[in-house]
Amino acid sequence: MRNSCIGASGTIGSAIVSELENDTNLITASLNTGQYSVDLSDHNSITDLFTKTGEIDAVVCAAARGVIFKNTADMTVSEYISSTQQKLFGQIQVALSGLPYLNDKGSITLTTGIMNHDFVVGGSAAAMVNSAVEGFVQAAALELPRGIRINAVSPALLKESVKAYGAVCPGFEPVDSTKVARAYRKSIYGIQTGRIYHVS
Amino acid sequence: MRNSCIGASGTIGSAIVSELENDTNLITASLNTGQYSVDLSDHNSITDLFTKTGEIDAVVCAAARGVIFKNTADMTVSEYISSTQQKLFGQIQVALSGLPYLNDKGSITLTTGIMNHDFVVGGSAAAMVNSAVEGFVQAAALELPRGIRINAVSPALLKESVKAYGAVCPGFEPVDSTKVARAYRKSIYGIQTGRIYHVS
Repeated sequence: MRNSCIGASGTIGSAIVSELENDTNLITASLNTGQYSVDLSDHNSITDLFTKTGEIDAVVCAAARGVIFKNTADMTVSEYISSTQQKLFGQIQVALSGLPYLNDKGSITLTTGIMNHDFVVGGSAAAMVNSAVEGFVQAAALELPRGIRINAVSPALLKESVKAYGAVCPGFEPVDSTKVARAYRKSIYGIQTGRIYHVS
Repeated sequence: MRNSCIGASGTIGSAIVSELENDTNLITASLNTGQYSVDLSDHNSITDLFTKTGEIDAVVCAAARGVIFKNTADMTVSEYISSTQQKLFGQIQVALSGLPYLNDKGSITLTTGIMNHDFVVGGSAAAMVNSAVEGFVQAAALELPRGIRINAVSPALLKESVKAYGAVCPGFEPVDSTKVARAYRKSIYGIQTGRIYHVS
């Protein structure tokens, strides 16, 4: 299997690389490191990536920055729009651009997150974006061609992220990134499609 | 109660007007008819609307055009982005712009739809948009100030829309728009917040 992981240098991406690197021909891409450079806020760079990788069996996207955290009453609609640029539309661009390069019965795995069902202060843009990704995944799964599947992994607060996000997520049970990474393996090597794999 | 209905000339909007006009001081707004003109694709026109209406007790938005229906593999990311302009970001702009004009314990009611849980061919943008609206509503409800509530109504295929959308929704049970309109009354006059009222 020849799999590509976008966002390979992030917390989740690093765990995915550890999970898959020993038994997979893994292509890594991220903003500044990895075999290939890709910028999720630049849709052309996503399309370019797949012209370089060529045919693949799985596309994984774990790059998901740029969501704004602020109280709803203090948000502007422009801040909601900019929150969608990478985690929603960047990931959809990954799915659409990767599709022609995916072998039959290949898979796409995107990333959402806990904040659209376990809500936090200032998290309305995060909830909006996560739900949007999940709506897209569940509908797209039903009409992708050539047996290609699409799922999303929805991780809880990562242990590695407690320092940065713990104050925003009081009492949230942290999860091991190794456990999160196994959900990407399930998506890649399993048979299910249109699933949201919640890992907590 | 002084309530405003945006999208009053549409199928759902007309039913809401019939439901509320006899016992409510109802302000109507839509693209071409109604007391006020408003264009959900022009965020300034939404903000302008509330400077004209002044203080209100409820904001209802039933204007939700512009979502593109096409097979996922044939969509471009630009088409997903344009699908969010009115039904997602137009409605969020309605919520944000209406907020300062809402009296204490007032309410906001947005509109989603069946297609993020009863999926149809070419409906991945509709699923994405509906889920995004619902994620926003559920998270925003928890932090709106002054006891202001926010809910969404998610109607099934309307009887009036069978001619236009029936072929896309084979076997979908059509629902009376009068029944859908009662869910908006429930949102306005009830005590619940962060709810998605499914009407089928």
